Amino acid sequence: MNTSVIGILHPGHMGAAIAAQFVANGHTVLWCPDGRSAATAHRADQAGLHPVPLVEFLRQSRLVLSICSPAAAEDVATDVAHLEYNGIYVDANAISPVRMHRITARLTEAGAEVIDGCIFGAPPGGHPPARLYLAGPESARRRVADLLTGTLAEPVHLGEQLGQASAVKMAFACYQKASRALAALAHALADDLDVTEALLAEAERMPRDILANRDYLPSVASRAWRWAPEMREVADTLRAHQLPVDLALATAEVLQRWHDNSPVPTDSPTAALRRLHGSNHQER
Amino acid sequence: MNTSVIGILHPGHMGAAIAAQFVANGHTVLWCPDGRSAATAHRADQAGLHPVPLVEFLRQSRLVLSICSPAAAEDVATDVAHLEYNGIYVDANAISPVRMHRITARLTEAGAEVIDGCIFGAPPGGHPPARLYLAGPESARRRVADLLTGTLAEPVHLGEQLGQASAVKMAFACYQKASRALAALAHALADDLDVTEALLAEAERMPRDILANRDYLPSVASRAWRWAPEMREVADTLRAHQLPVDLALATAEVLQRWHDNSPVPTDSPTAALRRLHGSNHQER
Repeated sequence: MNTSVIGILHPGHMGAAIAAQFVANGHTVLWCPDGRSAATAHRADQAGLHPVPLVEFLRQSRLVLSICSPAAAEDVATDVAHLEYNGIYVDANAISPVRMHRITARLTEAGAEVIDGCIFGAPPGGHPPARLYLAGPESARRRVADLLTGTLAEPVHLGEQLGQASAVKMAFACYQKASRALAALAHALADDLDVTEALLAEAERMPRDILANRDYLPSVASRAWRWAPEMREVADTLRAHQLPVDLALATAEVLQRWHDNSPVPTDSPTAALRRLHGSNHQER
Repeated sequence: MNTSVIGILHPGHMGAAIAAQFVANGHTVLWCPDGRSAATAHRADQAGLHPVPLVEFLRQSRLVLSICSPAAAEDVATDVAHLEYNGIYVDANAISPVRMHRITARLTEAGAEVIDGCIFGAPPGGHPPARLYLAGPESARRRVADLLTGTLAEPVHLGEQLGQASAVKMAFACYQKASRALAALAHALADDLDVTEALLAEAERMPRDILANRDYLPSVASRAWRWAPEMREVADTLRAHQLPVDLALATAEVLQRWHDNSPVPTDSPTAALRRLHGSNHQER
């Protein structure tokens, strides 16, 4: 394999671990120390990365990987575009497809070739193994995948359409991160009311494939008429315990609207989802 | 076993199935047809229940079970209290502990003995088998449990404290029903963006013990700084697809506040939850 010069913006836990996979394949990996913390510098050093100023970083790198906080992704890309970077730019951040399209437009105008990426799993070496989803021009995707051949980071090709990698990340986060917040609320409530043991017993018995089981969704629509008021009871309970009520109220609203738009049970999950989808949401 | 006269308000799918278990044990089960639908009458008939007017129903029943919609539970209990029912009253509905306490106060004043109940699982005969959680005076709990001996409805004793059965139901629903709504949103988004296959692939790989695994919660606190902006990206994505945004925004808010109140990672889930709990929520 030919070795390459790759740039990483910026080496957090995930970024440094991905960068280390490129290093393991014999590539040279650069990073930009400007304004970064001592912890970042330490991680970069441990991963075998070379510190260079941004202008030099962009001049040398044939591939730049942006792995940073969602809040910083657009600023990072804009800085790179201003310096007229013209290699391959992979934005692997958890951002909306709309933001991804804005980033793409700016970088493409500057001369870069853009890949929309997203990362699932633990940093390479952890469990489960990391997957780097890639959407965009095939030749650029192949180039990224080749650089990772044989490493602990698995490239997954989505296709040509930019925004799809961001979309997978958003759809999954919509479920997974919100579920974590809900679990915290459920346990805070159970702790307060001294029923933690019973909650855990029921948690052990619940079906474990809520997101994976699309076939269950129509039955949610048919139960929404009583689940909506139940979620309002949950909100009352959270309020009585000074816990945040908005997640419960928002759930009640989705269920209520889903019920209002699905008066009859349906045998098609897609039909149920489309009906939910079809009712425009009024912003509060 | 001595046979008893038991009243059920009202025989929906779950109520009729529970009532059928009492019938199977040789008990006489009554129901009130006043204002109920033809579907309810059919279910009651199939379950072997006897229709009687409410005054007669309350005069004959030594045990009344309320299994209805959360929205109706308090009205049902109030009607029973007005008629000075003085037997055992089990409210098995998905209601807040605060509402359960109001119901208890009214019925106790009328002369009844109250048990706080809640039901998990599918109607008896389905899978998983139904559990009837019971909280309240031990003698009354034992009486209810005895009437179900050997049936497909399993009584689970929580203790003397009224409100605890309602609390288990609320804590669990807070997670489980909201998770179903989130799964629907995630799939609606994935369908729209044509990444359903990738979403399902990741769903199959995700850890399946989010609610059962309390030990994971402190790590949510330590990731909240980047999860909060990620959930705001999710909200932007939902908005762009005319899907409801409030669940995502409410999650972002919980994570943000959790981060603000947990500046350092903690090794105790309870400590993390207490910190979340400690920050009073401002109603919008």
